[in-house]
Amino acid sequence: MPSSTANVAKVYLVGAGPGDPRLITLRGAACLAEADVVLYDYLVNDALLCHAPTAEHICLGHHRMGRVMSQEAINERMVAEARAGRIVVRLKSGDPCVFGRSVEETSFLRTAGIPYEIVPGITAGLAVAGCADVPLTQPDVASAVALITGRERNGKHEMQLDYASLASFSGTLVFYMGVTTAAHWSRALLDHGKPAAAPVAIVRRCSWPDQQVVHCTLDRVAEVIVERHLRPPAVIVVGAAAAMSSARIMNAGRR
Amino acid sequence: MPSSTANVAKVYLVGAGPGDPRLITLRGAACLAEADVVLYDYLVNDALLCHAPTAEHICLGHHRMGRVMSQEAINERMVAEARAGRIVVRLKSGDPCVFGRSVEETSFLRTAGIPYEIVPGITAGLAVAGCADVPLTQPDVASAVALITGRERNGKHEMQLDYASLASFSGTLVFYMGVTTAAHWSRALLDHGKPAAAPVAIVRRCSWPDQQVVHCTLDRVAEVIVERHLRPPAVIVVGAAAAMSSARIMNAGRR
Repeated sequence: MPSSTANVAKVYLVGAGPGDPRLITLRGAACLAEADVVLYDYLVNDALLCHAPTAEHICLGHHRMGRVMSQEAINERMVAEARAGRIVVRLKSGDPCVFGRSVEETSFLRTAGIPYEIVPGITAGLAVAGCADVPLTQPDVASAVALITGRERNGKHEMQLDYASLASFSGTLVFYMGVTTAAHWSRALLDHGKPAAAPVAIVRRCSWPDQQVVHCTLDRVAEVIVERHLRPPAVIVVGAAAAMSSARIMNAGRR
Repeated sequence: MPSSTANVAKVYLVGAGPGDPRLITLRGAACLAEADVVLYDYLVNDALLCHAPTAEHICLGHHRMGRVMSQEAINERMVAEARAGRIVVRLKSGDPCVFGRSVEETSFLRTAGIPYEIVPGITAGLAVAGCADVPLTQPDVASAVALITGRERNGKHEMQLDYASLASFSGTLVFYMGVTTAAHWSRALLDHGKPAAAPVAIVRRCSWPDQQVVHCTLDRVAEVIVERHLRPPAVIVVGAAAAMSSARIMNAGRR
């Protein structure tokens, strides 16, 4: 039906990166510049909105503030805006495809006949290597890195992970959304044989000016989070590579 | 010794992203604009050099062409250029910290007293979700994604991965540099109980104009690579989420 679809605009699902506004891609910034409306997650750095100065900016709210827009409402809003001929940027923290429910959104857009494009972003779990000096891969130490969500469903804290395979995973583990569930997953890893002394790096607000990096061991991670009053958002890195930062190698060499 | 270090310039280790030149970060492009010399891997899209029009451009060569610069020579060159007061960008395919030997380079720079900064990039193994419609994470299907190198050492094809834990990993597996070693790792996964029918997506030249996506099953991946004459670079995704692209969901719904 050309008459009803002629003015349908496009939706861009754009990864904002971990926080530092310079870590969005050129393509992401270009999509923002084209946007009529930007729907952005509360974890996104709103400094990025400077790329879309004339667009309408809609913050999707904070879970703990009770103002969050439901997934269904976000889907409907994207479709309604696109059908009204407005170019939409759905701006998501990190990478839209890493625990970002992008398939739910793109399936909805496809069903509604709305053209879309996904623009990848730098995910916080990998940015810790460059931004917080927490290595993830290292020849002879870690030939693999696993990104894991600390909760499987929005608001649902039950996890159905195979901790036996995670405990024996031959590489680095990176937990997303794992701050409030740290006692659970760290206990499960220990119960399945992961060593108590396995190095851990907790990176809070990766790449933001107030980034925090706390090193500890696996058996202490839940206690350290409480003692240091560490709140989300943070990614938590478990594994030998995490202890091998350039700074640490240098300091060890100087002893 | 201020007199000898006063003119030492900085080295930026910059992730170029998977190929599409629009997928470099704003920060990466800004570093290129500042550079006096760019040392770039042969897999990097040389269209990115437009951001450094007046810099010296040094391609580090292609392994199969026998012109590759050794890691030691790269390290020495970076230090020599920085000591000569020239700003260096070491431009790496994907993300410098994902199987990119960045710790070796940064440790060398630190020892030499050269200031450096790492700028993350979009890694091909995650870009497949946005650029090739191959999902990696999905609630109820894959709560984790593992990035794995198909060879542990440059030029050394022996792998020391724990295939039992990889076969039981509760999520998506993404193999880097796994094209030439596919017969080995796919056999090892099958031998450890990964189902023969596990969905596989081979994504060659992710985000480039000649990107190829080939779907098959785990028991067929090595054959398909031969039959289709698929050459590196490619990432190979194994797991249920890889079969759940929006396009496939739509097509299934239409049957």
